[in-house]
Parts: sequence; structure tokens; C-alpha cells
Amino acid sequence: MSKLLAVGTVAFDAIETPFGKTDKILGGSGSYIGLAASQFGIETGVVSVVGADFLAADLEMMNAKGINTDGVEVDQNGKTFFWSGKYHNDMNSRDTLVTELNVLETFTPVVPEDFKDAPIVMLGNLHPLTQASVLEQMTKRPKLVVLDTMNFWMDIALNDLHAVLKKVDVITINDEEARQLSGEYSLVNAAEKIHKMGPKYVVIKKGEHGALLFNQGKMFFAPALPLAEVFDPTGAGDTFAGGFCGYLAKTEDISFENMKNAIIYGSNLASFCVEKFGTARMQELTAAEVSNRLQAFKDLTQFDIKLS
Amino acid sequence: MSKLLAVGTVAFDAIETPFGKTDKILGGSGSYIGLAASQFGIETGVVSVVGADFLAADLEMMNAKGINTDGVEVDQNGKTFFWSGKYHNDMNSRDTLVTELNVLETFTPVVPEDFKDAPIVMLGNLHPLTQASVLEQMTKRPKLVVLDTMNFWMDIALNDLHAVLKKVDVITINDEEARQLSGEYSLVNAAEKIHKMGPKYVVIKKGEHGALLFNQGKMFFAPALPLAEVFDPTGAGDTFAGGFCGYLAKTEDISFENMKNAIIYGSNLASFCVEKFGTARMQELTAAEVSNRLQAFKDLTQFDIKLS
Repeated sequence: MSKLLAVGTVAFDAIETPFGKTDKILGGSGSYIGLAASQFGIETGVVSVVGADFLAADLEMMNAKGINTDGVEVDQNGKTFFWSGKYHNDMNSRDTLVTELNVLETFTPVVPEDFKDAPIVMLGNLHPLTQASVLEQMTKRPKLVVLDTMNFWMDIALNDLHAVLKKVDVITINDEEARQLSGEYSLVNAAEKIHKMGPKYVVIKKGEHGALLFNQGKMFFAPALPLAEVFDPTGAGDTFAGGFCGYLAKTEDISFENMKNAIIYGSNLASFCVEKFGTARMQELTAAEVSNRLQAFKDLTQFDIKLS
Repeated sequence: MSKLLAVGTVAFDAIETPFGKTDKILGGSGSYIGLAASQFGIETGVVSVVGADFLAADLEMMNAKGINTDGVEVDQNGKTFFWSGKYHNDMNSRDTLVTELNVLETFTPVVPEDFKDAPIVMLGNLHPLTQASVLEQMTKRPKLVVLDTMNFWMDIALNDLHAVLKKVDVITINDEEARQLSGEYSLVNAAEKIHKMGPKYVVIKKGEHGALLFNQGKMFFAPALPLAEVFDPTGAGDTFAGGFCGYLAKTEDISFENMKNAIIYGSNLASFCVEKFGTARMQELTAAEVSNRLQAFKDLTQFDIKLS
């Protein structure tokens, strides 16, 4: 069975959207990546840290989904990373209300022995030095290293980010962050500059406007599925990345052509993620639902031009 | 040969972008629609009005492209409609500097006899009553009526717009305008409400984020081709609409499946339009260039999922 190693946060989120609000519920990039990848029946190992207040039920749920949580350290002296945010009416912007790093402040990821040879590694959005420390623990160079990051790290740890980017094959980043990192407004030019920083593949996430995959002059685009209602966008980007990595791990094919399929799967899974609060929809998602929605993506994008 | 009747403005534009500025050059929805449709070797009749200051060379250029300008009235007592605008650095927003309606103020379109039976009619962005008066001159109900409009007419002539929409098969509109017309934020819900106003097909233009085609629950998406440089966005929407109508006229197939191809062609032509100021790129565009770029659209969007 193919292995995927994912490092990221396993956290509590409290979310408010125009449709309602939640108390502390399961969140974090590692949780979303793991749940998305679990759709592919691969062996996903999540590396993270939680506090004494974390719920055994949440770890059990992940294990039941086939997610290996041996790498999730439980720090009995601390509290779980907590984030709280409120989305505006258009769902495209949000205010962060609370960020309590808690156990994340001293997080030193330890990769379980079983995953030190994972062919695919997903470095979720964390400090670039933390991301780099995961790569250093691998016993052999993974076939594919995927890194997600955000503007925050460009602001406070740009040199560390540049250092880890040299060791990365794929970067996933949103459009504004791609512009910030490259200094280029055009996403085509931005991707070209980011290629020169290391990643041969650049995935630019545009939220409701889809995602672009760049590979040294080649391009592919996956739309987001237009939805009547977006209930909660939290975790959509991580779900997208988890679907992307999970599909590549399952198919054991990291060609550009297969990455096209992988970002379609990422978009597919992300379109479910936003239908309910937090991870709720991803926890109950079935293979049949994913397969049906794949047809919706084909209907949305595939055409057959007859005119020569 | 298939016929397309297009009503719209034939105008002078003066444009400023971060790349430079122009004096008065050929512009107007009718010009862009006609030039786009001319790529398909169909008979396109443009109905419009110009003033005594209009250039014979511009009419000749259109005729040389196979565009029938019998319906372009030359008002010797007036001046040609003039618009001037300045684009911001991101090219997604612009300021209108000058709008001189001139001969457009009293424009009463007269459809030439030869085009009163055109199977496809494109009503470019004009007062809804002007658009309606074109339909009233048709000797038989066209197979397909396509209407473009904008927020301005929603603000000052909403009842007239609703009246003409009842007679229309396809509306092309941008995302903000679709939200204004429907009162719905979600484009899926917006399209559903606009269907109820008349048009069975709703095309929502999202500029650099592509275009969505809705048909009573069915959806298709055409991306805009990501470009390193957008030189001048003026006319891209009209070129898109002209490509859409021209393709449908050429293929004589107004099924939903063929409309998918038509909006890909619309995006294809629009991606050329923005490469130079005004209509310059559309005037020199060759069939070979369009055909080559079609491959770029296929590469950008077509995928082959192997996983069941």
C-alpha cells in the first residue's frame, strides 16, 4: 500500500459563518489533509502535536478512517492549538478572532519509523524550519515533496522559507501569496519566478475561482465546483492538498498528466469540505459520493470541439 | 452561409493602461462582436450608428473581414460615440474618463432586409428598448437571441430590461451584474433566478476567472487563458460574446453541448483581444493562431482520470 506522510496541525477551531457558529471542533491542516487522503485507501501518517484537552474520540475517528496517528504527540502539559474565526457574508474573507498556539509553540515533529521512507510527503502550513526538520528525518529522498505555506511565514521567516523551498517539488499557495512571494502580479510570471526558487510544480489556489497547476511553462486549471451554498470554507485548501497528495500516492504516478487528475480530485474533495462545519462532511463522505461528483467535474470542464 | 445579426456600438475609444495610451481608436461592442464573429467565415451584419467623424478606413477594414455594415448608419450631423477610460495597475478595474453619447443618443436601429431572417441575433450592450426594437423588426423568430447588458441599465431601465429578457434565449452578464440582477450572491442561485426572467441559458463572465454557462441546472465552465501580460482588457467581453455567437452560427447547432464549445471559442478569441490595444489584435488574427490556441485550452482543461 502506498504511503503518505503529512505534517500539519491537529487543532481546535471555533467558527462563525452567516449560517451559524460552532464551539471548539476538530480542525487543523493535518486533520483535513489526513481525512482527504483517507478517501484513497492509502496509508497516511499524520505528524502533529495536541494537548491534554484533545479528545480521544477525534483520534479514534481518524484511526477508524485508516489514518495513522502514531506521529501525533500528546503533550500532557499543554493545551491544543486553538483558532477562532468569523467569515464575512461573501465567505471570501474572514477575521481571525483568536489564535492560541499552545503546544504548537514548542512543536518538534518526530516522524515515526514506518513513515521515514514514505514516497510522498506533504508539509502542511507550519514554520518553514519545522517543515525542513521533517525532511531531515527521512531515510531516503521522497519521490515527491509537497509544501503548503502562507503570507505569515513570508513576513517573518522568508529566508527559512526560501531554504526549505529548495528541497520541495510542489508548492501549494494562494494567488495573493504567490504574488507576494514572487513580486509578480501575473500568475504566469509568478509561477515562473517560484519555479526558480525550487519547486518544479506550482499550484496556485484561487478559492472559489479554482486552482492552477504550473510546470515549467505547462499549465492546467481545475475549477472549483460552483455551489448554491458554501457553508464553511475552513479547511478547503488543506482538503484540496490532501486530495492532491492522496491521489498521487494511490496511483503512484507523479507525472504532470497525472497531477492534472490529482488537482481535479483535490477540487472534488474540497467541494464537499465546504458543505458543513469543520471536518463534519469529510468524516461522513463516501467513495460513491466522490465518484458521482467526479462526473460533475467532467460535465463542467470536458468539451468536444468538432470544428477543425 | 449562416447569418448572424449583431447590434451594438461602433465607436471611438481612447484607452490608457499601465503599458501606454491611445488616441481615438476604433472601439464599441458592435466592432468587437463583428471582428470576433468574422473568424468563422459567416455572414455577420452589424447594426449601429456612427457620426461624420468616423473613418471610412475602419468601415472598409470591417467589410474586408466579411462584416456587412449596411446596417451601420452614418449620421452626417453628429459625432461618433466616444468613450475614454484608464485602467488601474491590476487591470481588473478602470475609471471612465469621458463618455460622449453623441449620435447614440437618438439611435434607432434599422435592420437591413437581408438580416431580418437571421437565425442568430446578438443584442450588444445598449438600452433595453433599443435591443427590443431590433427583435421587433425580425420577420421570423430567430433560433437564438443572445443579449448582453450591464449594471447601468439595471439602475435606470430595469422594467425595460425585464421586458426584453422575456424574449431572450441567452444572457451574457458579468458576475457582479448577475448578483445585482438576481439579488443572489451565489452564482448558481443567481443563474436560477435569471432563468425565471426568461433566458434558458445564462452566461456569467468572470473576466480573468473565466465564464460559466448555466442551463436549467446544467453547468459548464470555460477558463480564461492565463496570460503573462494583459495589455488592454477593452472589448474582451464583447469579443467573447462575438466568438460565442459566431461559433453557434457557423456550426448551426444551438444545443447545450455545442454551447460548451462556443464559450471555449469565446474565451479563445478574448485571450487574443487583450494582447494589444483596442481591436488591433483582432484585426490581424489568423485562423491558424486561433486553432493553435484551441490546443492550449484543451491542455489547460482536459483530463483523463484512470482511477474508478
